[in-house]
Amino acid sequence: MNQDTICAIATAQGGAIGCIRVSGPEAIEITSYIFTPAATNRELGDSKPYTLTFGRIYDGSEVIDEVLVSLFRAPHSYTGENSTEITCHGSAYILQKVLQLLIKNGCRMAAPGEYTQRAFLNGKMDLSQAEAVADLIASSSAATHRLAMSQMRGGFSKELATLRDQLLHFTSLIELELDFSDHEELEFADRSELCQLANNIEKVIARLVNSFNVGNVIKNGVPVAIIGETNAGKSTLLNVLLNEDKAIVSDIHGTTRDIIEDTVNIGGITFRFIDTAGIRETSDTIESLGIERTFQKLDQAEIVLWMIDATNAQAQITQLAGQLLPRCEGKQLILVYNKADLVDNIQNSIPDNFPDNVQSITLSAKKREHIEELQRMLITSAHLPTITQNDVIVTNVRHYEALNNALEAIHRVQEGLTNNISGDFISQDIRECIFHLSDIAGEVTNDMVLQNIFQHFCIGK
Amino acid sequence: MNQDTICAIATAQGGAIGCIRVSGPEAIEITSYIFTPAATNRELGDSKPYTLTFGRIYDGSEVIDEVLVSLFRAPHSYTGENSTEITCHGSAYILQKVLQLLIKNGCRMAAPGEYTQRAFLNGKMDLSQAEAVADLIASSSAATHRLAMSQMRGGFSKELATLRDQLLHFTSLIELELDFSDHEELEFADRSELCQLANNIEKVIARLVNSFNVGNVIKNGVPVAIIGETNAGKSTLLNVLLNEDKAIVSDIHGTTRDIIEDTVNIGGITFRFIDTAGIRETSDTIESLGIERTFQKLDQAEIVLWMIDATNAQAQITQLAGQLLPRCEGKQLILVYNKADLVDNIQNSIPDNFPDNVQSITLSAKKREHIEELQRMLITSAHLPTITQNDVIVTNVRHYEALNNALEAIHRVQEGLTNNISGDFISQDIRECIFHLSDIAGEVTNDMVLQNIFQHFCIGK
Repeated sequence: MNQDTICAIATAQGGAIGCIRVSGPEAIEITSYIFTPAATNRELGDSKPYTLTFGRIYDGSEVIDEVLVSLFRAPHSYTGENSTEITCHGSAYILQKVLQLLIKNGCRMAAPGEYTQRAFLNGKMDLSQAEAVADLIASSSAATHRLAMSQMRGGFSKELATLRDQLLHFTSLIELELDFSDHEELEFADRSELCQLANNIEKVIARLVNSFNVGNVIKNGVPVAIIGETNAGKSTLLNVLLNEDKAIVSDIHGTTRDIIEDTVNIGGITFRFIDTAGIRETSDTIESLGIERTFQKLDQAEIVLWMIDATNAQAQITQLAGQLLPRCEGKQLILVYNKADLVDNIQNSIPDNFPDNVQSITLSAKKREHIEELQRMLITSAHLPTITQNDVIVTNVRHYEALNNALEAIHRVQEGLTNNISGDFISQDIRECIFHLSDIAGEVTNDMVLQNIFQHFCIGK
Repeated sequence: MNQDTICAIATAQGGAIGCIRVSGPEAIEITSYIFTPAATNRELGDSKPYTLTFGRIYDGSEVIDEVLVSLFRAPHSYTGENSTEITCHGSAYILQKVLQLLIKNGCRMAAPGEYTQRAFLNGKMDLSQAEAVADLIASSSAATHRLAMSQMRGGFSKELATLRDQLLHFTSLIELELDFSDHEELEFADRSELCQLANNIEKVIARLVNSFNVGNVIKNGVPVAIIGETNAGKSTLLNVLLNEDKAIVSDIHGTTRDIIEDTVNIGGITFRFIDTAGIRETSDTIESLGIERTFQKLDQAEIVLWMIDATNAQAQITQLAGQLLPRCEGKQLILVYNKADLVDNIQNSIPDNFPDNVQSITLSAKKREHIEELQRMLITSAHLPTITQNDVIVTNVRHYEALNNALEAIHRVQEGLTNNISGDFISQDIRECIFHLSDIAGEVTNDMVLQNIFQHFCIGK
């Protein structure tokens, strides 16, 4: 299927060592053209798979680098093809030069994700597993790592395979009924039994669909809004939370934070802070529109931190409660009495007319007092279940959409059975349900979709 | 000597794959604690050297990643110790986690350059070769790469070894003379023969010392100053030269440019632009002081681009020639008539009273016209010899200083021989010369110096 041999730099720029991957039918030959083993009596092509050979990359008579070459033979490689990996010194010049030599000798630059795409096309993994590879590389917390690893190891694939087996069994029962429908004396699976089967399938798919809420929050962070009057100390608190970031995967995480702003990892959970403008008391219409926009942002939040200046608590609560409380229904609302260092007699009670689930805390953002307490409160409020590597949780929007389609189809099956609809209509819906589940594993996925999936991978994977 | 086992992430953050290096007496055992081969009947410790084993890294029952482990046994590894390299998915979380597991099981975080330091201490390479490893990783042009590669392959080491052999021979001749000096009847090497030997050695050391001029320029760039009146278009030209950078090692070079500002690779040669302030016609004393500072910067330059606004050429030349020309003696001066697009009748002649070696060019920085011509002029003016991998060129300041000391010592030997000084004084100077040459190879280098050298390496190398 893949007649050409691809190459790419698989490591980031700037390390002590760099690695170039070569994969395809001519991977070993092309590598041999530019690589000379240090042991004079050896040829790279004679090496056993899963061995390393030390030697030099030459450009004509000029030594480009002393390298180690790993060798793999089809089908026992990541891509399922013949492959080599050239480990060289991590100089931009050397990596680029080796890549140029490979291309000059017949390789083509790999497209993003093309190694994993080939692994998928060669049957080394299904599509959901291939997609998990990108998630695994992007994983920056224990939870995102666990989800990606579970998916890559095939937990999700197994669950889907079981579902499809059940659906195929289901459809065969129905189609048997259709084929022999004129033999009225024959007894088939009765409809109540079929209903039972459909209900079981529906339950599993619905559970997967619902798991996306958790999966999405784990992957993209629990959305938290900090809201309050302009002088309440919102930005101070945000900065403190972002800097107090001790639980984070060391300082390496900084790179991720550049991409998704204002995301912080507290106790292994990613929190995503929604930017809201400060609320000012006003009678100006335009200003009011701004406030309305701030309130609308609350819709995205799961947790709302209402910053209250403790030196002026009663006034601020009176001012905002009417508009704020209805917006926070179904969310975790935490009243944060700030500037505790400026007040002798701390006001931190929750007004009587507030709903039961509202919590409160007193702290000083400026002096960084009681911040850990707030962090613990955030972790508890996130309500995230403890995930194990055995849990199947959907994190991918494409999978979520396919599962929703599958769910709709199985709902139509259930209705059809209830309403005693003809078997061929039911069969059609079952087949549609199977189709959507197969789409997740990549069995019926079209090229456009595949291309779209893999182009979001990094080069070299 | 090294009783502990070290580990470090050897690749930069953000790639498709990442690599962790483990080296030391327990490298294989510690890796085995956290790694389980996929083939159930195998143990990592039973693997042959230079093989790869596929399997999983576990933290308790949790899979951290599916990885490949390369295995090397002492002395056949980079460090000369038992070593493993764990190639995993390039996730910051995974790399960090694997590192933590290794440390929990008995590894220590490697210091910068510690792998290469161990290679040096275990006799895998001499110190000048070890230093070349850092240069090789940092190399960003064909020329810097070639110098580092030549040094790493031991070209310099061989030259030094030959010198030391000659010096040892020399000193043995002199000491023989000393030992038997009371036997006046014995005939030793005569002084003119010894002079000849000293002259030969001096010539080689002097050549190496002089090569530093070229080596330094190749490594740090040819210093170019752009000077001229404030409105002449200096910054426009600088921006154009920095952006027109097509010959560069693709866009990857960008990372280097962040560190050393205003360095650009043209035709394989690195040019380093010296920042100078624009010169304004003034009678103000303070302003004049500023101009004087600008002129002083010219001292560092090898090439001076004198930007002249072609719309006002005569006036600008008259204004500055008196101060500028004496400052440019021994440098390559290029008159750059800018804003050629604004002038019909281009003025690009070199005034009669200017020295012979002055060149001129007419261009438009703004419209990017004739920039390539200027680039060609810069390349020619750089006067860089073509370097091959067989040339021994000194690029390292430490080596340069040691060679200068060796040169001084051999000069004293020459004087001593000419003045017929006693053999024990001459012998002392020869030994000092040997000492300085041995310092380059790291044979007499003290721990402080070693520490200083390797701490400038990157982690993982």
